[in-house]
Amino acid sequence: METIADTTFPVQYEQLEELAKRKLPNDVFDYVQSGAGAEETLRANRQAFEQWKIVPRFLKDVSHLSTKVKVNGTEIAAPILLAPIGMQGIVHGEGELASARAAAKENLPFVSSTVSSYSMEEIASETHGVRWFQLYYPNDPAIAKSLVERAETAGYTAIVITVDTAMLGYRERDRSNRYSPFLLGKGIANYEADAVFNERMSRSENASFLDEMKKIFYKSSLCWEDIAYLRSITTLPIYLKGILSAEDARTAADFGIEGIVVSNHGGRQLDGCIASLDALSSIKKEVGDELTILFDSGIRRGADIVKALALGADAVFVGRPYLYGLAVDGEVGVQRVLKQLKEDLFISLSLAGVSSLKELNEQWVQRA
Amino acid sequence: METIADTTFPVQYEQLEELAKRKLPNDVFDYVQSGAGAEETLRANRQAFEQWKIVPRFLKDVSHLSTKVKVNGTEIAAPILLAPIGMQGIVHGEGELASARAAAKENLPFVSSTVSSYSMEEIASETHGVRWFQLYYPNDPAIAKSLVERAETAGYTAIVITVDTAMLGYRERDRSNRYSPFLLGKGIANYEADAVFNERMSRSENASFLDEMKKIFYKSSLCWEDIAYLRSITTLPIYLKGILSAEDARTAADFGIEGIVVSNHGGRQLDGCIASLDALSSIKKEVGDELTILFDSGIRRGADIVKALALGADAVFVGRPYLYGLAVDGEVGVQRVLKQLKEDLFISLSLAGVSSLKELNEQWVQRA
Amino acid sequence: METIADTTFPVQYEQLEELAKRKLPNDVFDYVQSGAGAEETLRANRQAFEQWKIVPRFLKDVSHLSTKVKVNGTEIAAPILLAPIGMQGIVHGEGELASARAAAKENLPFVSSTVSSYSMEEIASETHGVRWFQLYYPNDPAIAKSLVERAETAGYTAIVITVDTAMLGYRERDRSNRYSPFLLGKGIANYEADAVFNERMSRSENASFLDEMKKIFYKSSLCWEDIAYLRSITTLPIYLKGILSAEDARTAADFGIEGIVVSNHGGRQLDGCIASLDALSSIKKEVGDELTILFDSGIRRGADIVKALALGADAVFVGRPYLYGLAVDGEVGVQRVLKQLKEDLFISLSLAGVSSLKELNEQWVQRA
Amino acid sequence: METIADTTFPVQYEQLEELAKRKLPNDVFDYVQSGAGAEETLRANRQAFEQWKIVPRFLKDVSHLSTKVKVNGTEIAAPILLAPIGMQGIVHGEGELASARAAAKENLPFVSSTVSSYSMEEIASETHGVRWFQLYYPNDPAIAKSLVERAETAGYTAIVITVDTAMLGYRERDRSNRYSPFLLGKGIANYEADAVFNERMSRSENASFLDEMKKIFYKSSLCWEDIAYLRSITTLPIYLKGILSAEDARTAADFGIEGIVVSNHGGRQLDGCIASLDALSSIKKEVGDELTILFDSGIRRGADIVKALALGADAVFVGRPYLYGLAVDGEVGVQRVLKQLKEDLFISLSLAGVSSLKELNEQWVQRA
Repeated sequence: METIADTTFPVQYEQLEELAKRKLPNDVFDYVQSGAGAEETLRANRQAFEQWKIVPRFLKDVSHLSTKVKVNGTEIAAPILLAPIGMQGIVHGEGELASARAAAKENLPFVSSTVSSYSMEEIASETHGVRWFQLYYPNDPAIAKSLVERAETAGYTAIVITVDTAMLGYRERDRSNRYSPFLLGKGIANYEADAVFNERMSRSENASFLDEMKKIFYKSSLCWEDIAYLRSITTLPIYLKGILSAEDARTAADFGIEGIVVSNHGGRQLDGCIASLDALSSIKKEVGDELTILFDSGIRRGADIVKALALGADAVFVGRPYLYGLAVDGEVGVQRVLKQLKEDLFISLSLAGVSSLKELNEQWVQRA
Repeated sequence: METIADTTFPVQYEQLEELAKRKLPNDVFDYVQSGAGAEETLRANRQAFEQWKIVPRFLKDVSHLSTKVKVNGTEIAAPILLAPIGMQGIVHGEGELASARAAAKENLPFVSSTVSSYSMEEIASETHGVRWFQLYYPNDPAIAKSLVERAETAGYTAIVITVDTAMLGYRERDRSNRYSPFLLGKGIANYEADAVFNERMSRSENASFLDEMKKIFYKSSLCWEDIAYLRSITTLPIYLKGILSAEDARTAADFGIEGIVVSNHGGRQLDGCIASLDALSSIKKEVGDELTILFDSGIRRGADIVKALALGADAVFVGRPYLYGLAVDGEVGVQRVLKQLKEDLFISLSLAGVSSLKELNEQWVQRA
Repeated sequence: METIADTTFPVQYEQLEELAKRKLPNDVFDYVQSGAGAEETLRANRQAFEQWKIVPRFLKDVSHLSTKVKVNGTEIAAPILLAPIGMQGIVHGEGELASARAAAKENLPFVSSTVSSYSMEEIASETHGVRWFQLYYPNDPAIAKSLVERAETAGYTAIVITVDTAMLGYRERDRSNRYSPFLLGKGIANYEADAVFNERMSRSENASFLDEMKKIFYKSSLCWEDIAYLRSITTLPIYLKGILSAEDARTAADFGIEGIVVSNHGGRQLDGCIASLDALSSIKKEVGDELTILFDSGIRRGADIVKALALGADAVFVGRPYLYGLAVDGEVGVQRVLKQLKEDLFISLSLAGVSSLKELNEQWVQRA
Repeated sequence: METIADTTFPVQYEQLEELAKRKLPNDVFDYVQSGAGAEETLRANRQAFEQWKIVPRFLKDVSHLSTKVKVNGTEIAAPILLAPIGMQGIVHGEGELASARAAAKENLPFVSSTVSSYSMEEIASETHGVRWFQLYYPNDPAIAKSLVERAETAGYTAIVITVDTAMLGYRERDRSNRYSPFLLGKGIANYEADAVFNERMSRSENASFLDEMKKIFYKSSLCWEDIAYLRSITTLPIYLKGILSAEDARTAADFGIEGIVVSNHGGRQLDGCIASLDALSSIKKEVGDELTILFDSGIRRGADIVKALALGADAVFVGRPYLYGLAVDGEVGVQRVLKQLKEDLFISLSLAGVSSLKELNEQWVQRA
């Protein structure tokens, strides 16, 4: 029998977004909500979900369905990870601490961003939940090594290296607002706590902290050799986030990493690029037997997850929904969003006639 | 020569919906009008009709056209059935009694829901029209048997078993409104009148009526074996409602039932699933010679019916239109809606150059 | 060098429609503007034009281009005919008299409707321009014969028999408005002037004029035998208006008539049917060498005409644009609309690199 | 690290357009912004960009990427040219002088229109930047020759001959506004300064300047022979602007000219014609090895340029964006627009994983 929500927390994503909009200063909301350029890819991400349709099967006993799944060697409550979102302190004072606690309570992995508002150690100290560390590979291998080693020490169990950020996307709304949380120093906790970075800065004459960060933050020469180096310095599983072509997925598999995240950064980096969901199928064909395939960009509801899983994802990243939850009600808000999404997913899978996640495949979807 | 409507009853579906909206409390209207999730399937159902176009043929004598058709062994006025809609008491005090009387007057079958506001016997006592019984298969075979036997006794001539409701869909607007007509006890008449259910409840300690219903209402383990059991306990024709794949239609045919209803529950169960109309053609190819194929989800006007029939349906279910008629003007409103739909269908068929329903086939439609 | 319009008459179709809307009573405007049913076909007619795109060719001397063309054996100023629109008296007192005069001044054929507000003889007396007669084939062959003979006598040079009106379309806005210009007696002039009709009425006891008209107006048994009869009673060229399939076009060619009008009655008859433009190409392939192919439904601008001609039409019918011109400014308004359309067509052809109408073919268009 | 814009100049194209709208008289803004006819092509130009999607490649060192490219034998800062826009005096007093200076400062070619508000010599005297001359081929070869020779003398390094303007497009908003900057004498500077034109006028009895211009401005007989003549009178490279078919591109290549501009005149000439971007791919296949292919019509952002280059363009023309910049802030505004576009392009290329412009090809895009 249906459950009736016992709070006034928004049920619909659109309502949640609207509420977050009212709670946040305009420039902060714009930063979270907007995409790069004309936001063509931001829209395309959602349109792709509308174009793929689920073909349900019925009269299959779904009473034993569980959304539990093993990802990166660990069983989690559902094939859902909290996407690495930086600088969460701009939407709520507790920032990543609140999000990570909520994730742990829901037994979902928290992927912590390099540019978090709290250091990875602070975040780790708050929760025993599954945590992964997302790495913006810095333009100084010694700092990269330091960050990865700290992640290992702090109990992070995977490294997600973002490959689509050779530089910041051309984000017009932030430029219009003249807003950069980065320049406001909201995402520097991991650097402030980093001995190698601090040592480097001490060698730099008259450098401010931010100036030094600017020097090393982006690495436009990031290439496969850096992946090889990363592989050499850590035994943690490595996931490449941002892959959108079968060709790159192929190369990734050949480099001996564990998985990829098919993602266009939620439409925030290269505008005009393909919808993340549209990239999934050919990548699955290419490396489905070799790599763990995670999906990111555009997930809002349970049906979206069903489609991504059917098209080849082993699990999905969820971003803006939980950040809006954080903005609206801190840890409780994040947890509420995760609970709703899990329930929606469970119901959607059941109604699609999926009796076990293992059987869900491309025969469950068709293009409209 | 054209007929000019002799009342102020709305002619256009959109006007009718608007009027119902004004008449009903917000949460009741939302319950009726909304779909599950993001309402993607609710929209897709209509978009599918827009994408299929009728190719009319002319200079064929259509003066002998009749919309009369034999369905389930009985001649009815048109290939239209009143879809099983539960808890009609929430939109009008007379609920199913009014709808069933209107259906009988128009010589169209009334498919009575398991969760009707009046018991199937009360509904039967109001009318001699054709009545089918829709079954939500309960999680207790003895109650299933009891309901089916009562339907037989009360003169219902077919069983429509709904297969797409292993659990309730994730209906966001109802959750937002914290509205559940079910929990308000609006759909319990058939249980209150059921000896087996009452006997079961008497064995249950301290159970409330609703608590007991919650225990048995949904059966997430519903499977083909239950269909076999249903087949074994009744000689009534059986129709499976909710089939959306040729594969399931194939299995249905092999189980020796009489027909299927291609339906996505009006977009109220699995959001993101294919439009009902888009599922029709492949199902027709698979089982068109073996099963009666009924269509449900999205019918608003005569042209919609022409398209569904051309794509393989033997008849269609109509849902929200008649419920809005009920909300607006009770029995008279339902009858008005049915009359209009019949006239619209007759005109649409005539203008499509269909001289007999038998000749209408897929050559009459093409995808735009 | 460009010409700047020397009046305030609207240049854009949308402005013209808006102005007509302001000038006319609501129910009259609705009657003119609306389509049948959900107006899906009304929209589809326009969408089809958006989907076909012109591929222009350049550096071809277009200085000798003329829009003059021979249609039905007569040279006219451009491949444009005034579509048969009945009951023009509802939008302007001079009705068809004004439209026919404007057509003659622009050397374009006026196709006069059976249900004109003035009799075909009155219209003929106003102008020496090219006139065709549109026939709603009545349910009494003697009256059909009488109408056709009168048309011959009055100098009409072709018969356009409408085949898509076995009965009136299901026009929801007119039903909502309870508006029927027909029942208001606005389209009876040709019957009032008809000796055979009057003689028939005199035999009918207590019949009112309208009652008698209702009896004979629609012929739902209209079929190819009636076309054969029509062929036998007149030497005038015959055009079948409403053909939408290659199959019907084939039959038409075999019946020895002169041409067809590919039309869906401007979306006013069968809602949900294919866009007229989408029907053109396959019909051209089937009968392009045998029949004159005219096009109707959706023409608003010069580029639309270029597309229809490229897809196989020999000329096009224009309807609502000139009727709005009539509503706004009588004869002057109609003439203004025709002048603008001719100029727009001339420019569009020139810019498409068409040096002679004869060379325009399907290579000039592609689907987007 | 990202740059935050240091002024209040609009970042988004839509904001820029809105600001220009507020600054300019309605009729002037309409003239700039509108397209011909129903503006179907104006919209199609943008829709085509939405339909093509970039497939980025990652982990390629893009730190050496440069947007510098050799076009027409000269290295320029980016593959961007300022499209020939006539009569720029209507949006800003300094007109082309300001635009040309801004182009030079950004090291991008300025393509000067035949109907500029300042003469080509005045424009040349303002800047040492790269300048091309756009020619509306006049209906008097002596004047054509004079204009071309003046362009050579004034240091223009290429001739862009527009082939899509046999006459002015049917621009409805200008006709509604009764606005013609041409007739207002805003684009006559090059004629006033032309000895051959003036000599011709002196032979014409009682002729006004504009009357004489009208006589010679459009040449509807423009054909390949005129291209041959143009070829014979100048050694400057010749580019044909307005080509939209592989067939015409083929002929162009056979005529020994240097390049073509795939363009539909920003939707201002033939409405209903194909989107410029949709014409690019087949033209690239036909003449990609023989001719320089430039692209025009619809470029608004960096991602648009990436798509056009991937589909075969060597460089693109930008029109309305810089004209709005001119309207809003003169030379500074144009320069601002160009700077933003270059930065957006650089970022978009980098994020697409393009390490050198040379490698960008059709494998970087796919149709959605």
